[in-house]
Amino acid sequence: MAVKKTLEHAYGFDDVAIVPGAVTTNPEMVSPDFELGGRSFPIPILASSMDAVVDPRFATTYSKLGGMAVLNLDGVQTRYDNPDEVLDRIAAASLTESTEIIQRVYQEPVREDLIARRVEEIKQGGGIPVVSTTPQNTKRFAPIAVEAGAEYFVVQSTVTTARHVSKSLRGLRLEELVRQLDPVPVIVGNTVDHDATLELMETGVHAILVGVGPGAACTSREVLGIGIPQITATIDTAHARDLYFERTGRYVPIITDGGIRTGGDVAKSICAGADAIMIGSPFAGTEEAPGRGYHWGMATPHAELPRGVRVHIGRNHSLNQLLFGPTSLTDGTENLMGALRTSMATCGARTIREFHEARMVIAPSIKTEGKIYQMAQRVRD
Amino acid sequence: MAVKKTLEHAYGFDDVAIVPGAVTTNPEMVSPDFELGGRSFPIPILASSMDAVVDPRFATTYSKLGGMAVLNLDGVQTRYDNPDEVLDRIAAASLTESTEIIQRVYQEPVREDLIARRVEEIKQGGGIPVVSTTPQNTKRFAPIAVEAGAEYFVVQSTVTTARHVSKSLRGLRLEELVRQLDPVPVIVGNTVDHDATLELMETGVHAILVGVGPGAACTSREVLGIGIPQITATIDTAHARDLYFERTGRYVPIITDGGIRTGGDVAKSICAGADAIMIGSPFAGTEEAPGRGYHWGMATPHAELPRGVRVHIGRNHSLNQLLFGPTSLTDGTENLMGALRTSMATCGARTIREFHEARMVIAPSIKTEGKIYQMAQRVRD
Amino acid sequence: MAVKKTLEHAYGFDDVAIVPGAVTTNPEMVSPDFELGGRSFPIPILASSMDAVVDPRFATTYSKLGGMAVLNLDGVQTRYDNPDEVLDRIAAASLTESTEIIQRVYQEPVREDLIARRVEEIKQGGGIPVVSTTPQNTKRFAPIAVEAGAEYFVVQSTVTTARHVSKSLRGLRLEELVRQLDPVPVIVGNTVDHDATLELMETGVHAILVGVGPGAACTSREVLGIGIPQITATIDTAHARDLYFERTGRYVPIITDGGIRTGGDVAKSICAGADAIMIGSPFAGTEEAPGRGYHWGMATPHAELPRGVRVHIGRNHSLNQLLFGPTSLTDGTENLMGALRTSMATCGARTIREFHEARMVIAPSIKTEGKIYQMAQRVRD
Amino acid sequence: MAVKKTLEHAYGFDDVAIVPGAVTTNPEMVSPDFELGGRSFPIPILASSMDAVVDPRFATTYSKLGGMAVLNLDGVQTRYDNPDEVLDRIAAASLTESTEIIQRVYQEPVREDLIARRVEEIKQGGGIPVVSTTPQNTKRFAPIAVEAGAEYFVVQSTVTTARHVSKSLRGLRLEELVRQLDPVPVIVGNTVDHDATLELMETGVHAILVGVGPGAACTSREVLGIGIPQITATIDTAHARDLYFERTGRYVPIITDGGIRTGGDVAKSICAGADAIMIGSPFAGTEEAPGRGYHWGMATPHAELPRGVRVHIGRNHSLNQLLFGPTSLTDGTENLMGALRTSMATCGARTIREFHEARMVIAPSIKTEGKIYQMAQRVRD
Repeated sequence: MAVKKTLEHAYGFDDVAIVPGAVTTNPEMVSPDFELGGRSFPIPILASSMDAVVDPRFATTYSKLGGMAVLNLDGVQTRYDNPDEVLDRIAAASLTESTEIIQRVYQEPVREDLIARRVEEIKQGGGIPVVSTTPQNTKRFAPIAVEAGAEYFVVQSTVTTARHVSKSLRGLRLEELVRQLDPVPVIVGNTVDHDATLELMETGVHAILVGVGPGAACTSREVLGIGIPQITATIDTAHARDLYFERTGRYVPIITDGGIRTGGDVAKSICAGADAIMIGSPFAGTEEAPGRGYHWGMATPHAELPRGVRVHIGRNHSLNQLLFGPTSLTDGTENLMGALRTSMATCGARTIREFHEARMVIAPSIKTEGKIYQMAQRVRD
Repeated sequence: MAVKKTLEHAYGFDDVAIVPGAVTTNPEMVSPDFELGGRSFPIPILASSMDAVVDPRFATTYSKLGGMAVLNLDGVQTRYDNPDEVLDRIAAASLTESTEIIQRVYQEPVREDLIARRVEEIKQGGGIPVVSTTPQNTKRFAPIAVEAGAEYFVVQSTVTTARHVSKSLRGLRLEELVRQLDPVPVIVGNTVDHDATLELMETGVHAILVGVGPGAACTSREVLGIGIPQITATIDTAHARDLYFERTGRYVPIITDGGIRTGGDVAKSICAGADAIMIGSPFAGTEEAPGRGYHWGMATPHAELPRGVRVHIGRNHSLNQLLFGPTSLTDGTENLMGALRTSMATCGARTIREFHEARMVIAPSIKTEGKIYQMAQRVRD
Repeated sequence: MAVKKTLEHAYGFDDVAIVPGAVTTNPEMVSPDFELGGRSFPIPILASSMDAVVDPRFATTYSKLGGMAVLNLDGVQTRYDNPDEVLDRIAAASLTESTEIIQRVYQEPVREDLIARRVEEIKQGGGIPVVSTTPQNTKRFAPIAVEAGAEYFVVQSTVTTARHVSKSLRGLRLEELVRQLDPVPVIVGNTVDHDATLELMETGVHAILVGVGPGAACTSREVLGIGIPQITATIDTAHARDLYFERTGRYVPIITDGGIRTGGDVAKSICAGADAIMIGSPFAGTEEAPGRGYHWGMATPHAELPRGVRVHIGRNHSLNQLLFGPTSLTDGTENLMGALRTSMATCGARTIREFHEARMVIAPSIKTEGKIYQMAQRVRD
Repeated sequence: MAVKKTLEHAYGFDDVAIVPGAVTTNPEMVSPDFELGGRSFPIPILASSMDAVVDPRFATTYSKLGGMAVLNLDGVQTRYDNPDEVLDRIAAASLTESTEIIQRVYQEPVREDLIARRVEEIKQGGGIPVVSTTPQNTKRFAPIAVEAGAEYFVVQSTVTTARHVSKSLRGLRLEELVRQLDPVPVIVGNTVDHDATLELMETGVHAILVGVGPGAACTSREVLGIGIPQITATIDTAHARDLYFERTGRYVPIITDGGIRTGGDVAKSICAGADAIMIGSPFAGTEEAPGRGYHWGMATPHAELPRGVRVHIGRNHSLNQLLFGPTSLTDGTENLMGALRTSMATCGARTIREFHEARMVIAPSIKTEGKIYQMAQRVRD
């Protein structure tokens, strides 16, 4: 008999809080390492593949600090011999000019020789090259990047599934990609659904990016009606990971990507089940970032849907300060690793897997207030 | 034993989000056709029967694009030989004058010859004439309109039920109307209730309009306390449609009407179970609309309750741009069909019936924020 | 074993909406009569016993229109030979002076001769005298008022229960009061609790006032933490009434009192289970009200807790317009009876008992928006 | 099989309301005494151990009124011979200077002789010395304070558990502390968790402080993502207390600490299960407080996380007025004890244990409104 559609509640960062439990430990006893492809990264925070966030120089620097920075193979770095000149131009433009400049900049074709050159630059600098492209460009770019020395390969679009129905005879088959790139680990995303995550894991990929339209300003939510708040997305996909692990013995990490802004958000993502998180804007605001204090989106490069506009972020702190402090701010936007460690210690969790066991509650009203207050202030200013 | 009244939760557009699933497809593989009366409309969006939205010229244009535009048989088109002169007057008036002018304009009686003339104008222009009136006027207007060539007939009031208790000996009986107009399909509304929908379907009507007092500005909600948010109304009535279909084999489409503003709202309505949606204001803002950049309500023409005031909307875009883009806006108010297609593709749904199977979640806080922010801004401006 | 405290959700006017069902009727077929003590009142709206709302003149006028107006036996009418002079003084004072004047005015003792005189004034004018006092003053004032011709007696305090534990040897016993005043019906309040309502009904009282601290501005909520939103309070106590009726065959009406502002609120109160409602502020804003466009509270006359301040309300409409329109306002604050009738008709309810059967849903976000918007505007203005 | 993480709802002061029941009593029949260590305190409100709240003079005064004031052993009183000079300096500084001054002031080491001297001062003044320190300093300070005459000892940090995993060979063991200080009662906190509370009670401590990151401005919530609203924290820990009492016959009071601002908050805390509450800011605003109208936090003295800034509070009332009125304010910030008594009386509760039985409901929308309104006003001003 016809079943009535049911609606479950979904929750975001501002809807929840972590509850300290019956054991505590000291922050210095905490090891929030993220393991992937036989390596252990002391910073479980990926820098997302955006032109204002990662260039080879940033990738190298961050890699040495202990994190993963993902270089975008569809951005200015692989379209221009001298990307710094392009980035200077975007930063120097007035706001009105900037949109047009950005749109023009990305019409230049990607050059295969530059893909190789950027990967090599990171390698030569002593960093671990991590690169990303869209499902459409994967077949073409992946072999080049891996040949040049890429050590992790990311396939990323708004929503990526193991089953994509298309008119073209042969789309991207993830099983083949994994086999072809072996032993280079393949990270795929984004997804938010339990079943979709299971199917992606079955293809053999090594990590999953989680997050579709999680935030208020997200065009996916406003324009398409699509999206799910990150805590629920993380809980759902982490559950799929745990079931898959129980069944197969293979542990496929979950990386929450989207909407994370503060140390509290980092802690909540990981407590909800993520093994790592991915952020863009906070990195774009560091002195080391290539964005020169600006940030711009390139998501959904769809003919009729708008390309992201340039946003002024400022160069607020060094990469080191963003991650480890010291800070005089009380809004959680600096010392992300210090906050994560303290949060884990307060729950007695010494590893990320232990932190997954900590209790969370829905505690919306308090944060909503804060948000409203912030918005009211933004409106006033 | 006396049962305590229970309250279930009801949800609107801003309370929910669509969740991408385990399959995706390309937007160009999506066919969001709406079928009614043996015809297939490529645009599942009806233009509502308001004087600022639909005149014969608009109806013809929109019909050729692939949509249904409903002409109001109780508006200026059927009261005046030269409605354009009246519309000019309303648009030219100051805001304070406008209310009085609008009230006076609708005191002129409806002329039966003009009903026929407007239907013929649409037909001659090459459009499909779709007309609407209230239950009170249906017996009188329906034969005239159908005789003149109307191909769809809409009976619409705030709340229409199959059982209306009245002092008059014989009110409108929908069974008879359906028989009398056969084979012209009869669309009836509005309703929001599961049982009321089933009873309406039993009368033989061909489609149901869903929506009573869904929005914040809606007088039904403020003045009468009556109304139900659209997602729940759509889920409830779509469930009735599915049960009725299982039992009888007859599929009676559900058309969600009221409060839809963005592509995200369109996608959510259809994902919730609607076969099509009906909108007014977005069309009133097109260059092709007869409202000249203004919009006014004529709902609840009740002696003691106020008639809608004139609202400035602006002529924001062409009809084509509203429906198909391109757009530089990120608020979802343009390219409604592009958004619907992308949304369906992201869920792997190639038809509207497949999109009904996609998952939705309650994710209120995020949109509430946005709303509050918008309102705070409106207050400031 | 020790049980953990549980919290149930409670709902107010802005949290719910009435859902139209499968039958409709015409507003003129609706009879929203309120029956009490063998009389039928065509207007199920009581005017509350406040000095800015009811004086003998207002009581007489409203009585003739078909409603009940409750005269406060602890107010200026029974303390002063010439209350109009006192009311003039309160209205003429500056805002800062007014608080002191109000506090001084209510230090004058209540005179028993004036109790009798006011009751007789209403009677002579052709009205039905309804009077109220606190539980403390009931034993002293009730015989005088009834002797003078009061036809309904109201015992009202913030919270009144059948069991009040006190040091004094003999407090007010409601059973005795009912017996003593018989056949004058006794109305008692306020309460919000199911069990408390049952116990009050057992004492033989004839109607129950429902509502404690329902509103945001309510000092009970802010200062004492006490209160419950009105829809839940009404549902809970109406359920007690229905169970009591089933068991005893005696129907004790429920009167929702507090926080009602619009026609929508009236409709929701009654749909939730109330047989009538009681309002103050809306009446205080009529030309006929003794408040001269002002209103002030006298609730919780507690030494350390503040007495209500004077609020400017304006003389916004005639009593007739408040109740029956016509209106040009769309916020529901005029034509309360028209709204109630239309709302009942839309649900196919011809009597209040039938309206109790209509369905309601929780639909909070929409109204919250409206509230926030209104507040944002108030803040701006 | 892997279990999906579940999220329960948690509630704060503004989410709930107390529901009056079927019995009432008079406020003067209420005895809200708090019993601890064989003494009965007529005021169940502890003054928290902050330098702007408690100095020996304040402790003495408050003690004589019937409450407990906790002296901070890590503050200016134990670092300076003449703390008044330091407090004058903090109060006299400009806002920008103040942060630096505060940070410098707390770098001076704590002197053991001053610990003893302050305790003696309270004792000599006729007060009951209650002192507090962090878990780190407990072993060192506790014997000195007790030796000098401290009658209650508080061990307090953001989160304190019975099991703390640390690299140092021997951390603080609460069992030993309790034994060592016997018969001086030991109060420990803070915690929010049911199991953590049970484990703390097993160590023999005499009372538990409840509250971690309850408020919006709380750095724990923003920075660490950690916290739980106070009503749920109180209900959960009070349940642990009741189970422990049933099992052992030993009653370990729960003291809710954090976020309490009004009489309504006090009443709700106790109704939710607290035996007493602890507040800082309201006391800091009294004329008797050492803060000179200012307040500053010293919480989480963590190298990379910011120390609290100085906030202007004003000297709003005498201690007596804060607790007992009279008041002309309607926001509940004065006459806390009057509000608590009235609230208890309205529920027919004569003792705190009886008040624990009163019913509470979730009634969020109303208070949210109020909050938004207040915030909108703050933004405007």
